[in-house]
Amino acid sequence: MLGRMDTAVDVIRAKRDGRALSDDQIRWFIDAYTRGEVAHEQASALCMAIFFRGMGARELSAWTDAMIASGGRLDLSGVGRPCVDKHSTGGVGDKISLPLCPLVAACGVAVPQLSGRGLGHTGGTLDKLEAIPGFRTALGTAEFVAQLRDVGAAICAAGDDLAPADRLLYALRDVTATVESIPLIASSIMSKKIAEGTDGLVLDVKVGEGAFMTDRGRAEELARTMVRLGSDHGVRAVAVLTGMDAPLGCAVGNALEVAESVDVLAGGGPDDVREVTLALAGEMLALAGVDADPARALDDGRAMDAWRALVRAQGGDPDASLPVARLAHDVASERDGVVARIHALPVGVAAWRAGAGRARKEDPVSPGAGVTLHVSEGQRVTRGQRVATLHADNETLLQAGLAAFTGAVDVGTGPASSAPRVIARVTS
Amino acid sequence: MLGRMDTAVDVIRAKRDGRALSDDQIRWFIDAYTRGEVAHEQASALCMAIFFRGMGARELSAWTDAMIASGGRLDLSGVGRPCVDKHSTGGVGDKISLPLCPLVAACGVAVPQLSGRGLGHTGGTLDKLEAIPGFRTALGTAEFVAQLRDVGAAICAAGDDLAPADRLLYALRDVTATVESIPLIASSIMSKKIAEGTDGLVLDVKVGEGAFMTDRGRAEELARTMVRLGSDHGVRAVAVLTGMDAPLGCAVGNALEVAESVDVLAGGGPDDVREVTLALAGEMLALAGVDADPARALDDGRAMDAWRALVRAQGGDPDASLPVARLAHDVASERDGVVARIHALPVGVAAWRAGAGRARKEDPVSPGAGVTLHVSEGQRVTRGQRVATLHADNETLLQAGLAAFTGAVDVGTGPASSAPRVIARVTS
Repeated sequence: MLGRMDTAVDVIRAKRDGRALSDDQIRWFIDAYTRGEVAHEQASALCMAIFFRGMGARELSAWTDAMIASGGRLDLSGVGRPCVDKHSTGGVGDKISLPLCPLVAACGVAVPQLSGRGLGHTGGTLDKLEAIPGFRTALGTAEFVAQLRDVGAAICAAGDDLAPADRLLYALRDVTATVESIPLIASSIMSKKIAEGTDGLVLDVKVGEGAFMTDRGRAEELARTMVRLGSDHGVRAVAVLTGMDAPLGCAVGNALEVAESVDVLAGGGPDDVREVTLALAGEMLALAGVDADPARALDDGRAMDAWRALVRAQGGDPDASLPVARLAHDVASERDGVVARIHALPVGVAAWRAGAGRARKEDPVSPGAGVTLHVSEGQRVTRGQRVATLHADNETLLQAGLAAFTGAVDVGTGPASSAPRVIARVTS
Repeated sequence: MLGRMDTAVDVIRAKRDGRALSDDQIRWFIDAYTRGEVAHEQASALCMAIFFRGMGARELSAWTDAMIASGGRLDLSGVGRPCVDKHSTGGVGDKISLPLCPLVAACGVAVPQLSGRGLGHTGGTLDKLEAIPGFRTALGTAEFVAQLRDVGAAICAAGDDLAPADRLLYALRDVTATVESIPLIASSIMSKKIAEGTDGLVLDVKVGEGAFMTDRGRAEELARTMVRLGSDHGVRAVAVLTGMDAPLGCAVGNALEVAESVDVLAGGGPDDVREVTLALAGEMLALAGVDADPARALDDGRAMDAWRALVRAQGGDPDASLPVARLAHDVASERDGVVARIHALPVGVAAWRAGAGRARKEDPVSPGAGVTLHVSEGQRVTRGQRVATLHADNETLLQAGLAAFTGAVDVGTGPASSAPRVIARVTS
């Protein structure tokens, strides 16, 4: 029990001074914050203290518990097959959910994906799907469960009742420079995924200059922390560290990434997108205990059928033309040589500035804007050769994108070596 | 200049990551917070980051500057004599301002004291003065300056225009566990004192178990920091470290402390209260370059005359009876022996709980409540001898005070040694 004099200030002070918070302190703080009894300025002070002091495994488990308990938890028992979801910490050109969810569904495992929108230089799955004419990302719970039963996969926004404490804390951390804390990141991701009711979860932890985590050690720590939180709460989880020094695939931007995803679902597409899709699909099927060959399901059209069914179920037309930005501008190589590096961060920022992303969560995004890369690392180019195209809806956005693109493609003289995408695997 | 993309989040992140803030970042943040453009949750996150990362001398000077610049600065040139103020970091039974201000005025130096109210276990000068029937603690600027000219001393509340950023930050820090940061304490105190327009300032930094700073090293660091901020802003400052393991004097509580102060002004009173009053008066006179003997001014009635003039000028009646609490309860020694220690913290908390102090700044205080000590350290007592009296307005408050008083007076068998009150002196 909380002592009679225990207040928000006592909880903040305890963490500030490096003491572990009790389960009751954590439960009370999160609950009172969700109900508006603890003020935003108190929650942000606690988040900053957590940034500096961290949280032990027991504390973090209780914190995640309290975030889940702030709302409801979906019951997916009516789906009738194993449910496994995937979460990515976000990268440039990371459209993997689009081919992955229908692919896994085609192999007999349901994918209950509650997803988010993009903020900053990494895109969001919902923004990408909404580039498809008619696509609805808001589904009711009954509709969500029915689609999982009938189609095997659904990708939509989380309802307001799912981990509302996380929604509050996430918005707060965004404006108070308290995002970059491993316990806060891990509990934010895992509370939503656990509340979503999935049986298993594959975590794609991106590491590299275009990712949220640029340091491999910290990425592994985040992966371990999330996998442990999963097992604490009865969700089988596995994490895969994947490289994000270069953008994933050739397309960065909402409709551009949908088109590239459809290429992969048709058995083609860039090698790295296919590689990561198959690696994550393999992990998801293994978690569900299903023995199937995802490569075959991509190549024989079953994944594409599942994709078309998913798009139709959510009101979209899989045969509709995708939106195209009003302006397209080619970027040429300034020299002869070999493409040594394509830097994910400037490519991501260029797509963002060109209109594909948003700076504030209430901003709209342009469905057609973004970057198309025409070359890959290790490829020989000549001076004047087109290396990329920027797409934007007006000249201002186009120029902003071009300015950000500067230095995105390094052309050198020596041979280039591109790193493998799948770096490591973290299990409990 | 701030970069185009510089926002509150960038400033918080810079401090969080251990980088020094630029003058422009500091000026912008404090100004925007005062105008309501930076949110409370952003300011509290920055305060917590400052708690962990500290501030360098240049940063802290700019921070204090920005707090002063958030409001006006008083012009005391019309007073016609040197102005020197005193600030105490607060202790149990610390009524020193009451005898000190008129004493220094009696010696020819004006004392422009803008003071505060008590919060927690240490009392506030304004609460004490308001125990005097009719005493007004709200003075307009013209009235304040006129009283300094005519009486030589004025003690009142700071106007809303003086360092408004500090008022906001102080209230914020109180509820976010970000009080205990030396740069934030030092800038809070010094911004108000510098804005008040004083030429010189004596800082009484309390150290010990009943003080805000229990550690001598930290108390000295705070003292040095404040003295340096003074010279950065053209205010001659000196700090005196004084002990706060035991309460100062025998009276703790508003009217009780006024009565004890009048005893000192009459040339009597407890030795330690007289000692600290004279030590601080000597420092204030030295800062003003005035050669006078404050002990004589206490003993020959000049200080008392100045006190009576001050009370009358602020609407009070120096001859009126002071309020008395409805209930008084004696606490007896449980054994024969020698008073080894009187602990300031339980005495302060007992007076607070009995009604002399407040838990929240909007709470009223009882003028008559508090603690009277009847013994001093080193004194021999017998079992059943009265060592203290608690004063409260009702039985609930009295019992709360008595519960807090437990363990306040240690009676032992060996000899007791009481530490000197004045510990050290810090100058620029």
